[in-house]
Amino acid sequence: MIEAIAFESGSVDAYDDLAAAREASGTTWVRATDATVAEFERVAEAFDIHPLTVEDVRRDVRPKTEEFPGYSFTLVKDAELRRGEQTFEEEVDDEPVGVFIGPGWLVTLSTASVAAVEAVWRRVEQEDQRLLTRGADFVACRVIDGLVDEYLDILDQLESQIESIEEAVVTSTDIETLERINAVRRDLLAFRKIAWPTREAVGVLARGDSAFVATETEKYYRDVYDHLVQVVDLTETYRDLTSGARDIYLNTLSQSTNEVMKVLTVVATIFIPLTFVVGVYGMNFGDSQFNMPELGWPMGYPAVMLGMGLVIAIMVVQFRRRGWL
Amino acid sequence: MIEAIAFESGSVDAYDDLAAAREASGTTWVRATDATVAEFERVAEAFDIHPLTVEDVRRDVRPKTEEFPGYSFTLVKDAELRRGEQTFEEEVDDEPVGVFIGPGWLVTLSTASVAAVEAVWRRVEQEDQRLLTRGADFVACRVIDGLVDEYLDILDQLESQIESIEEAVVTSTDIETLERINAVRRDLLAFRKIAWPTREAVGVLARGDSAFVATETEKYYRDVYDHLVQVVDLTETYRDLTSGARDIYLNTLSQSTNEVMKVLTVVATIFIPLTFVVGVYGMNFGDSQFNMPELGWPMGYPAVMLGMGLVIAIMVVQFRRRGWL
Amino acid sequence: MIEAIAFESGSVDAYDDLAAAREASGTTWVRATDATVAEFERVAEAFDIHPLTVEDVRRDVRPKTEEFPGYSFTLVKDAELRRGEQTFEEEVDDEPVGVFIGPGWLVTLSTASVAAVEAVWRRVEQEDQRLLTRGADFVACRVIDGLVDEYLDILDQLESQIESIEEAVVTSTDIETLERINAVRRDLLAFRKIAWPTREAVGVLARGDSAFVATETEKYYRDVYDHLVQVVDLTETYRDLTSGARDIYLNTLSQSTNEVMKVLTVVATIFIPLTFVVGVYGMNFGDSQFNMPELGWPMGYPAVMLGMGLVIAIMVVQFRRRGWL
Amino acid sequence: MIEAIAFESGSVDAYDDLAAAREASGTTWVRATDATVAEFERVAEAFDIHPLTVEDVRRDVRPKTEEFPGYSFTLVKDAELRRGEQTFEEEVDDEPVGVFIGPGWLVTLSTASVAAVEAVWRRVEQEDQRLLTRGADFVACRVIDGLVDEYLDILDQLESQIESIEEAVVTSTDIETLERINAVRRDLLAFRKIAWPTREAVGVLARGDSAFVATETEKYYRDVYDHLVQVVDLTETYRDLTSGARDIYLNTLSQSTNEVMKVLTVVATIFIPLTFVVGVYGMNFGDSQFNMPELGWPMGYPAVMLGMGLVIAIMVVQFRRRGWL
Amino acid sequence: MIEAIAFESGSVDAYDDLAAAREASGTTWVRATDATVAEFERVAEAFDIHPLTVEDVRRDVRPKTEEFPGYSFTLVKDAELRRGEQTFEEEVDDEPVGVFIGPGWLVTLSTASVAAVEAVWRRVEQEDQRLLTRGADFVACRVIDGLVDEYLDILDQLESQIESIEEAVVTSTDIETLERINAVRRDLLAFRKIAWPTREAVGVLARGDSAFVATETEKYYRDVYDHLVQVVDLTETYRDLTSGARDIYLNTLSQSTNEVMKVLTVVATIFIPLTFVVGVYGMNFGDSQFNMPELGWPMGYPAVMLGMGLVIAIMVVQFRRRGWL
Repeated sequence: MIEAIAFESGSVDAYDDLAAAREASGTTWVRATDATVAEFERVAEAFDIHPLTVEDVRRDVRPKTEEFPGYSFTLVKDAELRRGEQTFEEEVDDEPVGVFIGPGWLVTLSTASVAAVEAVWRRVEQEDQRLLTRGADFVACRVIDGLVDEYLDILDQLESQIESIEEAVVTSTDIETLERINAVRRDLLAFRKIAWPTREAVGVLARGDSAFVATETEKYYRDVYDHLVQVVDLTETYRDLTSGARDIYLNTLSQSTNEVMKVLTVVATIFIPLTFVVGVYGMNFGDSQFNMPELGWPMGYPAVMLGMGLVIAIMVVQFRRRGWL
Repeated sequence: MIEAIAFESGSVDAYDDLAAAREASGTTWVRATDATVAEFERVAEAFDIHPLTVEDVRRDVRPKTEEFPGYSFTLVKDAELRRGEQTFEEEVDDEPVGVFIGPGWLVTLSTASVAAVEAVWRRVEQEDQRLLTRGADFVACRVIDGLVDEYLDILDQLESQIESIEEAVVTSTDIETLERINAVRRDLLAFRKIAWPTREAVGVLARGDSAFVATETEKYYRDVYDHLVQVVDLTETYRDLTSGARDIYLNTLSQSTNEVMKVLTVVATIFIPLTFVVGVYGMNFGDSQFNMPELGWPMGYPAVMLGMGLVIAIMVVQFRRRGWL
Repeated sequence: MIEAIAFESGSVDAYDDLAAAREASGTTWVRATDATVAEFERVAEAFDIHPLTVEDVRRDVRPKTEEFPGYSFTLVKDAELRRGEQTFEEEVDDEPVGVFIGPGWLVTLSTASVAAVEAVWRRVEQEDQRLLTRGADFVACRVIDGLVDEYLDILDQLESQIESIEEAVVTSTDIETLERINAVRRDLLAFRKIAWPTREAVGVLARGDSAFVATETEKYYRDVYDHLVQVVDLTETYRDLTSGARDIYLNTLSQSTNEVMKVLTVVATIFIPLTFVVGVYGMNFGDSQFNMPELGWPMGYPAVMLGMGLVIAIMVVQFRRRGWL
Repeated sequence: MIEAIAFESGSVDAYDDLAAAREASGTTWVRATDATVAEFERVAEAFDIHPLTVEDVRRDVRPKTEEFPGYSFTLVKDAELRRGEQTFEEEVDDEPVGVFIGPGWLVTLSTASVAAVEAVWRRVEQEDQRLLTRGADFVACRVIDGLVDEYLDILDQLESQIESIEEAVVTSTDIETLERINAVRRDLLAFRKIAWPTREAVGVLARGDSAFVATETEKYYRDVYDHLVQVVDLTETYRDLTSGARDIYLNTLSQSTNEVMKVLTVVATIFIPLTFVVGVYGMNFGDSQFNMPELGWPMGYPAVMLGMGLVIAIMVVQFRRRGWL
Repeated sequence: MIEAIAFESGSVDAYDDLAAAREASGTTWVRATDATVAEFERVAEAFDIHPLTVEDVRRDVRPKTEEFPGYSFTLVKDAELRRGEQTFEEEVDDEPVGVFIGPGWLVTLSTASVAAVEAVWRRVEQEDQRLLTRGADFVACRVIDGLVDEYLDILDQLESQIESIEEAVVTSTDIETLERINAVRRDLLAFRKIAWPTREAVGVLARGDSAFVATETEKYYRDVYDHLVQVVDLTETYRDLTSGARDIYLNTLSQSTNEVMKVLTVVATIFIPLTFVVGVYGMNFGDSQFNMPELGWPMGYPAVMLGMGLVIAIMVVQFRRRGWL
């Protein structure tokens, strides 16, 4: 779907008006959402955009800014966390958005419907195109800013997941916990792949390397750039936190094994020797001269039981001292 | 085998026509496949290519682009996954392809038969050499693009292997699983060694640093460059995924040991003390005054059995609470 | 709260005098502490500071130095360790401080009350504004220096925590110890995120890249820069120390498991075979021809007991030799 | 031992002819092998080489290329694997070789006898000094190339060691295997320390930064440089392989512990409960009313045995299902 | 303590002669050892050294070279290994030494007595100040060289410690061994913090970036620089060796646990089933029809013993085959 909106001349819905839209006085914004290949080509033709550039949007390459004669091209990504196959897993899902800034016109292209672009568009419509008077570069900045704000939302979601994981790892040794850690790490990895080059792409616009960004608009791009630096920073910090969580998880598992071993050792160490002792008095040696006369003693049984009780008591004290009990 | 194809003058099969092919009007493409040392030298001589450059193709050095007076030399690699010695193992196998771009001519050299080069050649033949009218640099770009497309295929195969590993590690503690992880890591390592310098080599052509690549062809090279950036990125991501898989694998193993320990501890902790108890009543102390009068009680046996049943019940409850059962 | 102080003209408390304060001869320092949005805007307006710059202070972005026409802007952070939710945990808490150096004036903005800024302000008041004669850049340097000195205090606190952890890990296998290690690591991570960009920001002022820092003041900034280099260095060293502590911790845990296993093995290895032996003589084979004639021997019982005593002695010697006992 | 060889004037053996050798028309090569301090100084004096440069060769510093007025100095290393103290260990042993390229002369200095230098020298002698007509820079390149070829030999040896380790780790948990892995890692570390700076040193000559290397010789240096890039690459790859091998080794050890635990658990879990059961029927409760009437039943014994047989069967099935048997 | 020595004019001991010493013809060296704050200031005043620079020496900042109008300032460190609190621990202890090179004068400042500076001073005295004729930059180089030589001594000591650790880890699982490894790692970390910036500081002098170092002296600095490169290299290598040692240590511990487990498993696996068997024949089933007729058989006892002997033999063979015995 292609829509065009221009200052003064208002909205342009029909396909045929694209060339006219370009020539309109003031700033024109042409937006192609959910666009088909044919629509991509139509827009490219109307604005003299190189076919390969338009294909970059469709082929979903890395975010980047490229300067062409006649326009500046920035590829950014619309990102969101989508529920994955497994209930605890979420995946970073991204859609490319092509932003073309020309003299007096702005073109945004996407193969899907993108909420952040939509929001700016509605704003333009509601304010009677007043936003367009600030120039195509400014509107483009608003669009990119909207997309980057979503990144911070995603990081918030990932942070709350990390916090829930951090609580879980102290007690749980579920394999699912480790899988959750790995899922978050995978998300952060995927996310960094988006945020890192986007930072570079916006940096180009913020540093004034583009002929289509006015000097006074640069500070707004610098603002978006600062956001992206923060996003990249947080990504790194969160990765580090997941490493810490994994260490605690593995340690909890070792602790658990250690705990299990202690119980086994305490029980076995107390009762295996005692079982030997009672086994001795279960032997069938008769009571001839040296053969187990203690069996015949009146106090033999209580003495043995008492002796064994003493052994248990001593051992319990020992284990207590070692912290095994 | 040396073959030459030229716009207008058509195909040149005979060895002697190489010099003529070079002089042909329009663009000439000379291709040496499965070439012997003698053929390499013949081609080098006909196109004034430095012997060392030709030898670089034979010696299979790292991918690179070098600018020489009279031609530009790019060494790229044809890569494929080949079944290794062990059934689960696949190895990255690579063949060097030398691409020489001169004024009005293109030379491709390889010691083996390379499918990607073959495909472009067939295309040229089918289209009556029309492709050649776009220049030697454009045809070279198509050849390199074909090779890089294979890289993405390889990464697809590695990805499906990683996915199958990721499923396996959650349950299996087979040593083979770890070996599979290491095999994939080895492949990614070998693959990165190819992709990384190739990215640099194509970057040289894409940035317009070569006198033999026309400005309008650069964007096609930039396209290939973007592919290679993606390839390198994926390689890194996949390495990271294998690390995650290895962590889960090692953890599954620890889990398994922990599980085994729990079973042992539960069984031993319940039955070792009970065996002691029955051992006590197996002692041969007579029934004199203090000697085990309980043996004579009518309800002695059921009482002991009931007592032991109680102990078992309490312990089971305890273990349940600890999650060991 | 906005306060202004100027050389000669003395302190300016009223809001309305901001423009006058700017025009005052000598150096004026306007300080906004615990400032509201309205106050931020008022200051910005009076000193021609770009709204976005002022918002950077409120939005709490990374430390940085930016040169604007008319003033230089440095964002630094006031950092302190705050007791976290859990008793053993402390968190790095930071507040942004905006430092604006203009020709003849200095503006400091913060959304909270900052002790380091307060201290320099008191000093200026006590010395009858003498400090202001050294220029806005010098006073700014003192403010930043005060903030950086706090960083060294924080590092001192973290160091003493690490030392207490290092003592703990040698003996303790408490999960809390690991959590403490992770808490310190998290603090160092958060702290590095502050110190690193601050170093860059001060570096810009120290290298003479700012038009508002006089050449003779640069050495004082260089001094602060050296401090920051030391801070970053220490952060790295402390991270490495926590890694070492974690290794020892995990090892202590493995040692403990190993110790437990040894006790179990020693006890089980001695008594399980002996229990078998006494079991043999507890069998109810009669004393017919080949059936356990030893039960009838007068010295049978002492012989068996002696034999078992010998076995115990030999085993104890063996275990001693292996260092298991 | 100092030897000189010059085109046309032939070999110069006597010490006194060094100055003459330098002045000889054509290219002169002076080689000092197994040279004493006095010989080093003599050569330095005759060719106006700075004493510190000559000392660099003796003091065995890192490989480097330095340009001096009058000559270019490259320090390279002759490397070989030497059998270490322990049978399985091999150590990287290196000898410095100083290569001085002047106008019309080449000087090579070494404190030991170096095979690669020897080989080129023999070649020069056999070919009646024809090689010398190609210039001192070309001969120097041949010498360096010979040394670098040895590096590839060493890597071949290390690779075959890694392969043998990779086979060993899958089954063996010998501590020696780990020591072998560490020995190879140590070798690779030592080797990288040689190869890395050598690559830089040759890079200087290959990039045409030296006044004493002719432009047409540069390609030969570029060739050596490509070799060195490959050497450094392989070093990294091999390090990675040893990491993989270590992981498998440690895992094999964990597997082994796991295996041992399973056997123990299976045996103990089956027989400890059964021992309890037979213990029950070994108790000496008489056969009064409720006291173990089953002892008197005609089918009591077979019933108990059958019951225990059933328990064993069920457990074996259980363990089979868990993969513990 | 301040001492001055000048070529021709001889030694200057009195405080008042500092200005005169500066003006003396030839090169003057003023050395302040164990200097107080007052002495620092006195020297600074006499030679127009900026107070902050002198304070850098007292505040013990990172090694660095800074160029000032009138002099060049290099801060280096005197390092030594000092016995730490625990017997096996040694700590890197460092003292700052300020080296100021001016036109015709050299000033060295230190808050402690430094052996390396002392040694050069004695040399100057013994040789009747002849060394001073080579210039202040040359003498400074000798001083720095002396300090760097100490670094190599320290590394030698650390190397011998690492070697003793490497021997220990193969057999010992003492926690002390791990602590020793961590102590050496801490030393290397501290040491690298000194060596790294010193390399940069000397690099500045070696590259001719200082106006106070003559071109012909640069090669001596380059020499010191080469030493420092070696020092930094060794530091890295040693760190890697300690990592290897730690791996072996942890593995030795795992091996030990594995060994303990094997012994337990072998003993338990042999005797627990046999104890069951003898328990069977200890049951009190009478010898009615199907009740344990084997108890009455004449060969019953020998048969059971033989059977159990066979079981033991088979198991021992099994364990041998698995390498557990």
